[in-house]
Amino acid sequence: MFKVTFRFESGETVEAFAASGENLLEVARKTNVAIDAPCSGNVVCGKCRVKLIGGELVTKKSSHITEDEFDQGWRLACASTVEADCEILVPDIASAYKSRMKVADLSSKDEVRIFENAKQEIGEAGIIFKNSLDRISVKMDVPTLDDTMPDNERLMRAIKKQEGVDVVHLPYTVLKKLPDVLRESGFSVKCVISRAKSHIFVYDIFPEADESAICGLAVDIGTTTVSALIINMETGDILAKASAGNGQIRYGADVINRIIESQKPGGISKLQEAVVQETINPMIAQMCKSAGIRTKQIYRMCVAGNSTMNHLFAGINADPLRMEPYIPAFFKTNSLYAQDLGLITHPDAHIIIAPNIGSYVGGDITAGTLVSMIWNRPEFSLFVDLGTNGELVFGNSDFMMSCACSAGPAFEGGDISCGMRATDGAVEACVIDRETMEPTMTVVGGGAPVGICGSGIIDIIAELFRCGIINGKGKFVREGERIRHDEHGMGSYVLAWQKDTGGIKDVEINEVDIDNFIRAKGAIFSATQTMLSSLGFDASVIERVYVAGGIGSGINMKNAVNIGMFPDIPLEKFHYIGNSSLAGAYTMLLSTEAERKTYELAQNMTYMELSAVPTYMDEFVACCFLPHTDAGLFPSVELR
Amino acid sequence: MFKVTFRFESGETVEAFAASGENLLEVARKTNVAIDAPCSGNVVCGKCRVKLIGGELVTKKSSHITEDEFDQGWRLACASTVEADCEILVPDIASAYKSRMKVADLSSKDEVRIFENAKQEIGEAGIIFKNSLDRISVKMDVPTLDDTMPDNERLMRAIKKQEGVDVVHLPYTVLKKLPDVLRESGFSVKCVISRAKSHIFVYDIFPEADESAICGLAVDIGTTTVSALIINMETGDILAKASAGNGQIRYGADVINRIIESQKPGGISKLQEAVVQETINPMIAQMCKSAGIRTKQIYRMCVAGNSTMNHLFAGINADPLRMEPYIPAFFKTNSLYAQDLGLITHPDAHIIIAPNIGSYVGGDITAGTLVSMIWNRPEFSLFVDLGTNGELVFGNSDFMMSCACSAGPAFEGGDISCGMRATDGAVEACVIDRETMEPTMTVVGGGAPVGICGSGIIDIIAELFRCGIINGKGKFVREGERIRHDEHGMGSYVLAWQKDTGGIKDVEINEVDIDNFIRAKGAIFSATQTMLSSLGFDASVIERVYVAGGIGSGINMKNAVNIGMFPDIPLEKFHYIGNSSLAGAYTMLLSTEAERKTYELAQNMTYMELSAVPTYMDEFVACCFLPHTDAGLFPSVELR
Repeated sequence: MFKVTFRFESGETVEAFAASGENLLEVARKTNVAIDAPCSGNVVCGKCRVKLIGGELVTKKSSHITEDEFDQGWRLACASTVEADCEILVPDIASAYKSRMKVADLSSKDEVRIFENAKQEIGEAGIIFKNSLDRISVKMDVPTLDDTMPDNERLMRAIKKQEGVDVVHLPYTVLKKLPDVLRESGFSVKCVISRAKSHIFVYDIFPEADESAICGLAVDIGTTTVSALIINMETGDILAKASAGNGQIRYGADVINRIIESQKPGGISKLQEAVVQETINPMIAQMCKSAGIRTKQIYRMCVAGNSTMNHLFAGINADPLRMEPYIPAFFKTNSLYAQDLGLITHPDAHIIIAPNIGSYVGGDITAGTLVSMIWNRPEFSLFVDLGTNGELVFGNSDFMMSCACSAGPAFEGGDISCGMRATDGAVEACVIDRETMEPTMTVVGGGAPVGICGSGIIDIIAELFRCGIINGKGKFVREGERIRHDEHGMGSYVLAWQKDTGGIKDVEINEVDIDNFIRAKGAIFSATQTMLSSLGFDASVIERVYVAGGIGSGINMKNAVNIGMFPDIPLEKFHYIGNSSLAGAYTMLLSTEAERKTYELAQNMTYMELSAVPTYMDEFVACCFLPHTDAGLFPSVELR
Repeated sequence: MFKVTFRFESGETVEAFAASGENLLEVARKTNVAIDAPCSGNVVCGKCRVKLIGGELVTKKSSHITEDEFDQGWRLACASTVEADCEILVPDIASAYKSRMKVADLSSKDEVRIFENAKQEIGEAGIIFKNSLDRISVKMDVPTLDDTMPDNERLMRAIKKQEGVDVVHLPYTVLKKLPDVLRESGFSVKCVISRAKSHIFVYDIFPEADESAICGLAVDIGTTTVSALIINMETGDILAKASAGNGQIRYGADVINRIIESQKPGGISKLQEAVVQETINPMIAQMCKSAGIRTKQIYRMCVAGNSTMNHLFAGINADPLRMEPYIPAFFKTNSLYAQDLGLITHPDAHIIIAPNIGSYVGGDITAGTLVSMIWNRPEFSLFVDLGTNGELVFGNSDFMMSCACSAGPAFEGGDISCGMRATDGAVEACVIDRETMEPTMTVVGGGAPVGICGSGIIDIIAELFRCGIINGKGKFVREGERIRHDEHGMGSYVLAWQKDTGGIKDVEINEVDIDNFIRAKGAIFSATQTMLSSLGFDASVIERVYVAGGIGSGINMKNAVNIGMFPDIPLEKFHYIGNSSLAGAYTMLLSTEAERKTYELAQNMTYMELSAVPTYMDEFVACCFLPHTDAGLFPSVELR
C-alpha cells in the first residue's frame, strides 16, 4: 500500500492509502476527495487535472496536458495510477462542483421572490393553495376499569366522531408513540393528519400543548446542483433554503455517464447514496438547524428533477432511459416514502414526484412549466431551462410542446476548462475594451476570479466576437498580450493572470471551450427553430421567453442573442426566472390543486423527439456559428 | 477488567470480561450466556444457580443456597459480583429455557395433525379457506418508439384490464425491480398480489417462468417458547415447523418482569430485539432453509401471543398493561409490516395479530378459542391454556366468557427447582410404588433425567400424595431413602441420584416446588369455579375440557384431577389439544374468513377480571390443598 496525500489550495490535506496500480481518480472517490470527472474518468474531458507536488505517479499522456504543464506536474487523475507514495495538489477548480453546501440568507428578498411570485400568479389563475396536511386537537375520555378500550381504538374513534370520517389509519410510527403520548398528555393530544375524503391518515401525535409547525421539503435535483426549501405547510412560509453540488458529480457530469456508472456492480446504490445520503440528507439537517425545527417535522416532500435524476434518487434502474425505445420506470408514482429511500425526514413522509413526460423531459420541466404560466395565457411563450441539458417548452393555454437537446453542461460551466458554477469566484459578467482588449469583470462574491460560470461565458464569447478577437467560427483572429497559442496552435484569451489572482493557474478561455459553448448554444437555438418550424411558425410569434436554470441571474440577454443562443426578438420579451423547477416543487407541495395541474400539464404536453426530425441535424450544424450561418435571422446583431 | 470464564456441562466455554464490581448475571446477559432469571435478577426466585469452580466471586448469601451448597461452590449469579478472575460452571438446568431451536420432522403425523384437524373442523363449520393472496400471469405489449408508456403504468394498466379492478398499487419494492424484471422476461411476468374489492396490491413480480410458492408464517409467541410454521398460502401445506426458547427469557420468566425490564433505558428495543432478531429471525432462516424457499417468499404472517408478548414483539410500550386500569395500546391493529419490525420476510409482509381481549387475555387465547370450536357447539366447553400464565374460556355457541389467573410459570417447569420445558431430559411422566416409594419415570428423548417438565410435576405430586408421602398441604409425612430434609427441615423427594445420572446434581422435588405448584393448580381451579359460579353453574355442565399449552402432551388428566387442578368430571371429557395458539394463527393466516371469525369471537367474548370478584381470593385459598379443602368436590379422588 502507498500513501497518497491530497493537498487543497486551502492548505488542508487528506491522506489515503492505495494499492499498487490503483487509479488515482478511484482513490480520490473512495476517500471522498471531490475531483470532477464529467466523462466518468475515461480520459475524454480533461477536467480531472491535479498537480503532482511530491513523490511519483505513473500517468498516460493525453492531449489535455501540454508538455510544459506535464513538466510542471499537471496530470489527469483518471489517467494516473499509484505506484509509489505521492502528494497531489487538488486545485479548487478541479472540484468546483463539489458538494459545498450553502444555506441561503432569507432576509434577502431575492431569495424568496420567485416562490412568492409563483404562489401569487398561480393563485390568480384560480388554483387554491391548500394541501391535505392538517393539525387537529383530539380530546379523549381517560380510561377507567369500566372503560378499557385500547389506546388505538380510543384515538381512532375520537377522530372519527370529531371529523366525521369512516376510516382512520394509524401507522406503526404513531402506534409506537401512542401509549406514552396519551398518558403524558392526559389523553388530550394534537395530531398531524392528512385528509382524503372519508379517510384520515395520522402522521404524528403530540401532547396538546405542542405547537411544532407542519413542515414540507421541496427539492430540485439538478444533475449538477441540488436546491431545496423547507416550508411551513400551513402558511407557505419559507423556513430555510439551501443548495449544494449533487454528490453524484464524481460519477460523471451528465446523465449518460451517471447511468453508465450506475450499471457497474452496486452502482445503483452508490449513485442513490451520493444524492440522498451525501447531498440531500446533510442539506435537510443543515436547513432544519437553521430553521430551528426537527427533521421529523417534515411530513411531505416534492422532488423535481430530470427523469434520470428521479430514477437514481429512487434507486431505480435508469438504464432503459438511455436506450431505445427510452422507457422510464415511471412518469409519476405514489409509491415513494421517505423511509424507503433513507431520508431523514419523518419516515412516513410521502414523496411527490413532479411528473416526467419522457426520458429526456423530466419533472424539472413540468414543474417549471407550471411556474412559467405558459398554460394560462393565449399568447405564445417559450420556456427554456438551461440545466446540464437544455429543455424547451413552447405553447399557450391551448397546447404545449416540449423537447430536449443535448446541450451538455456548458451553461453550468461544465466542458469549459475554467468553467464553474455561479458561486464565489465565478466570473459572471464581462465587458472587453475593443481597442485594448482588456476585460472588466464582475466576480460572484467580489473576490479574485477563480473560474467562469455560464453567464460569464456568454458575455466573454459575445465580447470577443464583438471586438473581432474571434471570428464566427470561434477562432482567434487578433493578437495581443492576453491572447496566446499553445504548441498545437490553439488560441486562448487570458482573463486574469495567476500572478494577479494568486490562484493556481491563469483564468482563461480557449478555442475548445468556445467550440463547446457554440455547440451548446447551437443545440438550444436549433431546437427552438425546429420546434417552431414544425408548427409552421417563426420566432416572431413568441411573446415571452422565460429563461430558467443554473446559468446565473447575471445572464445578459442581449449577449445571449448576439451569440445566436436565443432568437433575435425584442429584449423586453426575455425574463430570467431562476430555479423554476424548485419553485414548481414548492407550489406542488403547498397546493394539491397545483400538484394535479402539473399532472394535467404533463399529460397534455406533446413531446417532440428531435433526433427523429430529419432536418434537425442540418439546423444544428447551421447554428454552430456566431451568431448563425444565416445572419438574416439576427438582424439586430452588429457584425464586423 | 477481570476475566470470567463460563463453562458448560458440554465442556464448551465462553470468555467474558467484567469490570470490578459488575454483577455476574449482567455479565452473562451481555455475553449471551443464557442463565434463567425468572425474577429478573432480584434474588427472589433462586433459579440462577451457578457453580464457582475457579477463582473468586463476591456473593451475598441467600436462603436459596444452603451452607453445604455454598461450600461446594454454588452461587446465585444475580447475587454475585465480579472482583477477580473466575471460572463459572453453568449447569444445563440453569439454562433450560435457553434459545435452543428445534426444527420439526414433518414426516411425523403428530407434528401436523393439530393443524390439519383445525382446518378440517373449522371448514366443516362453514368457514371458507381462502385468503387474499394470489398469483397472476400478466403479459404486456413490448414498448416501442410509438408506445413509450412507462413501466409502472404499463403493468398497472395490464392488471386493471385483465383483473377488472380500478386501483393497482405497486409498492416501492416492486417499482425497484420493475425495469429489470420486465426486460428480463420480455414483458411477460408473474405477480404475487393481494386482492381487495376493486383494488389489487402487488407484492412481488417475477419472470413468467418463475414457480416460487407464496408462503406465509404463523407464529405463536409464548412467554417461554416461540413456535412457528411456514405454510404454502395457496394449498395450506405446512412446509416447515420449528420452536425455540423466547430470547426474552433472560429478562425474566413472566410478563411482569419482562415489562419491568422494558422500562429501563433502551429496554423496549432490547426486549423487541430478543424476540425478533434473536428468536424469530433465526427460526425463519432455519425453516426457510429446511423448506428450500427464500425468506422473501413469505408475504404475510400471523402472530398469536399474549398481550404483553404482542406489545413487546411490536416494540410498543407494554407498561400500561400492568397498571390499573390495564389498557393495551391495541387489541388488534392493521398497522404492522415486516419492515417496521426488522423481520427478514418480504419487507411488505403484513402482520396479522390475533386479537387481544384484555391486558391478560391475549391473541394466543382468541386464536386457541377459534381452534377449540367452543363457538360452534350448543354444549358448554371449557378451554384451558396452561402457558406461563393460565387463561380460561368457558361457553358455547351462544356466549363465551374468559379470564386469566396468575398461575405463574410452573406448568412449563418454571418456579420449580428442577423444572424445565418438555424437551430432551425432562421427566414427563412418573409412577411411584406405594410400598418401596421407588419411582418409574418416562423421560423425553429417553436418556437420563435432567429435570422435570409440567406433566411430570403433576404426576409426581399426584403420586406422592396417593402414596401418602406428602399430605394435603404438600408436606412430607413419610420417611425413606429418597426423602430428605435440609437444615431448615424442608423435605424433598429425590427422583434420580446424581451418581446414577452423571448430572450435576440430584433431580428432586422439594416442598417449595410442591407449594409453588399447588398455588398454580389452585389458581386454575379457583378461576374455573369462580367463572362457573358467576353464571350459576357448577362443573357438571361442562361437556368438554380442552387443555392447551406447553405442559406437554404427556399430561395425565386423571392425575391432574387427583391434585385438584381440573374439576372432577368424567375423564373422557378431557382433550389435550397442544399448541392451539399456533393452530389458530395457522388458520387465521390461511383463511380470511377465519381471521374475521376470530375478531368476532374476541369482540363477543366477555372478560372477567378475577381480582374484581370479592370471593375469588377465598376460593383460591380453599384450592391450595390437595385436592381441595372441600373434598366433596372431588368424589372420585381416593383419599388416604
